Amino acid sequence: MGSRESIGIGLMGLGVIGGAVAKVLTEKADALAAEAGCVLRLRKVLEKDLAKTRASKMDPDLFTADAAEVLGDPEIDIVIEALGGDRPAYDFIKEAIAKGKCVVTANKEVMAKHGPEFLSLAKEKGVDILYEASVGGGIPLIAAFKQDLLANDISAIHAIINGTTNYILTRMASEGLDFAIALEEAQKLGYAEADPTNDIEGIDPSYKLTILAMLAFHVLVRPEDVYHEGISRLSSRDFRYARELGYEIKLLAIAKEKDDSIEVRVHPVFLPKDLLLAKVDGVYNAVQVEGDLVGRVLFYGQGAGPSATSSAVIADIINLAQRINLGVNITHELKLNPSKRLKPISEIETRYYLRMSTVDRPGVLAKISRILGDLGISISSVIQRESDVSADVAEIVLMTYPAQESAMQKAMAEIERLDVVREISNFVRVED
Amino acid sequence: MGSRESIGIGLMGLGVIGGAVAKVLTEKADALAAEAGCVLRLRKVLEKDLAKTRASKMDPDLFTADAAEVLGDPEIDIVIEALGGDRPAYDFIKEAIAKGKCVVTANKEVMAKHGPEFLSLAKEKGVDILYEASVGGGIPLIAAFKQDLLANDISAIHAIINGTTNYILTRMASEGLDFAIALEEAQKLGYAEADPTNDIEGIDPSYKLTILAMLAFHVLVRPEDVYHEGISRLSSRDFRYARELGYEIKLLAIAKEKDDSIEVRVHPVFLPKDLLLAKVDGVYNAVQVEGDLVGRVLFYGQGAGPSATSSAVIADIINLAQRINLGVNITHELKLNPSKRLKPISEIETRYYLRMSTVDRPGVLAKISRILGDLGISISSVIQRESDVSADVAEIVLMTYPAQESAMQKAMAEIERLDVVREISNFVRVED
Repeated sequence: MGSRESIGIGLMGLGVIGGAVAKVLTEKADALAAEAGCVLRLRKVLEKDLAKTRASKMDPDLFTADAAEVLGDPEIDIVIEALGGDRPAYDFIKEAIAKGKCVVTANKEVMAKHGPEFLSLAKEKGVDILYEASVGGGIPLIAAFKQDLLANDISAIHAIINGTTNYILTRMASEGLDFAIALEEAQKLGYAEADPTNDIEGIDPSYKLTILAMLAFHVLVRPEDVYHEGISRLSSRDFRYARELGYEIKLLAIAKEKDDSIEVRVHPVFLPKDLLLAKVDGVYNAVQVEGDLVGRVLFYGQGAGPSATSSAVIADIINLAQRINLGVNITHELKLNPSKRLKPISEIETRYYLRMSTVDRPGVLAKISRILGDLGISISSVIQRESDVSADVAEIVLMTYPAQESAMQKAMAEIERLDVVREISNFVRVED
Repeated sequence: MGSRESIGIGLMGLGVIGGAVAKVLTEKADALAAEAGCVLRLRKVLEKDLAKTRASKMDPDLFTADAAEVLGDPEIDIVIEALGGDRPAYDFIKEAIAKGKCVVTANKEVMAKHGPEFLSLAKEKGVDILYEASVGGGIPLIAAFKQDLLANDISAIHAIINGTTNYILTRMASEGLDFAIALEEAQKLGYAEADPTNDIEGIDPSYKLTILAMLAFHVLVRPEDVYHEGISRLSSRDFRYARELGYEIKLLAIAKEKDDSIEVRVHPVFLPKDLLLAKVDGVYNAVQVEGDLVGRVLFYGQGAGPSATSSAVIADIINLAQRINLGVNITHELKLNPSKRLKPISEIETRYYLRMSTVDRPGVLAKISRILGDLGISISSVIQRESDVSADVAEIVLMTYPAQESAMQKAMAEIERLDVVREISNFVRVED
């Protein structure tokens, strides 16, 4: 159990995350060495972009454009993968583990797609891969599931884990903006990318939910198992009705377990406005977890950004360095329970908000109610406004009691075929 | 690194917490063994109260009324101290550590008063004492400071860590209740004890803040170093003014660092109503932490209750069991930095809310303003209502810009000596 003099670090990628990590490793070297039990020495940095290497003002000898120089360096104990995306990150991580190195990554996509493979390879090799920064930036989440909450049977996760969409929804809710305008403002402020698809279509949070659901529910989840819908269908009218009915609209990543059956889905929801989760505004993230012992806990903070992300990456590095110093191998295995199954979206049961444009005539609501009733769906409330008579158009808003998604989809198809219904303008699931 | 067949547990105290822990250890035995890497065997339970031992339906052979039977049992690796209070918990924990046992405690008082002593004794003996449950029930907090946030320089903690007072304040805010009525309701519902002093006078949160401040700021804090005020002076009028001015009133435990100088205080505050922390209602707890890298994070959940507390106690037990199984000793040392000092309350700088009863005459406000101005205190806003002329009484409410506490105390003493001022009805510090 001899303590080491130093631990070698290899950094792959000097983008915003990698750059922030390198900066903290340098600026806080003494404090981090005290925590780790020895010096953390940055030995190689993989970065081809000369503009980035020059701007960093780091020792030019550290840089290499060849991944093999990092992965093949026997002095490197811990590899930080800060490239993002699936390839080549996947290959580099696999090779690092195969060579007996520990890995730290902030990469949600590669962990969602290949996490189980990495973890079993790491187990075999007596090393570990840590990925605290892959979900929720610097908010301690992965560690909470691995350690602090492990006495609990988790029943549900409700998470705001995409800052871009939460910012857009907050602006739409507070200022009555339309989606396109709010998106444009988010882009101007750097909160949304030029191509915002990954965020606004719910792809980014579905990666993160994949990671959380495997940890919390011990079931194998692939990103494509996560049902996801984006926020682009929401209009300012939906926000007005939501407010009137006592709800906020949030893009939630939801995972729930009931009777060994697990649902994983990302979509906009109506959330009762009194819930703390409904009050999480702007680019902030929050993850609410329900456990049989702990009840409801919530973790809140900046879900992105180089500085917050580096907080989690560095904590992971220290954690690994402490273990290397003690000479112990602890791979956190992903315990998967084969008796659990994933529930398809068609089988979920929830309440629904439904907004329809209809002709303005008596009996319309009766026709709609009959379709719902025949499919076993009960209406809990209705808003029908006095409408513009000359246009012969009315808007009807319904809230239902809990119903199965498949029944609801069938009902909506039938409602849309009614000659008195012009369109179903939107429907949003409700979480209580 | 040979894995053990079982790890022996000794439980001291079968009260609400101890009873809940014993229940979980029994009911979840298989799942916990899978996490710990071996069976967790409850070997002895210290409990003199026969009513409790009988009600537990546990094997009667487990019980003893003699602490030495737990502390002297060589088969016991981990002692759970669930007695609460200072003595005899202090003596038992010391003896357990001295005998080379690990300790888990949920006892805020004993950790606040003797934590540093326990930790250095544990270091010497190569064991550890974990105390996650001592603050915030099942909310992961201690672990967050020890591991997840350790790359950060923490600048501030703002915490709602007393459910009783938060419940009372929530009722006062939402229903306009007076303190005495709200307290009575809390007692009826079991949220406040028959003698509520520890909670409503801020003693309980000052123990918890002592623990958090030592972890976050690496400074030695004793409970008596924490300035504390309770909530009994607050009236429904203060809540009305707070709302009008855009604030909520919360009992906060605050620790802040600036230039190696640390302030630790517990008192009611005006908190801007848009902050997520201001929206934490009822018996819930929340701890907001600010770090240089992570920015602002917040942890929320049930801060008390046997079930939530057992979640944290069991996580600590598993953590220790994993280490015992791996044959490693990791004592988390409390790193104390001798160059840091505690700042007395007189030196803090903050904004103030001040409510006064005065005679209803021109020039009163001018006299008050002059006293404040002479002491360098600027007024940011004033509310003065048209008053009941016949009674010759007016109420003046002031908000100040940041000022030093000593200046403010001096100003209040002078204001109270003015013949036009009947009394300073209340003053509350403001946090932004």
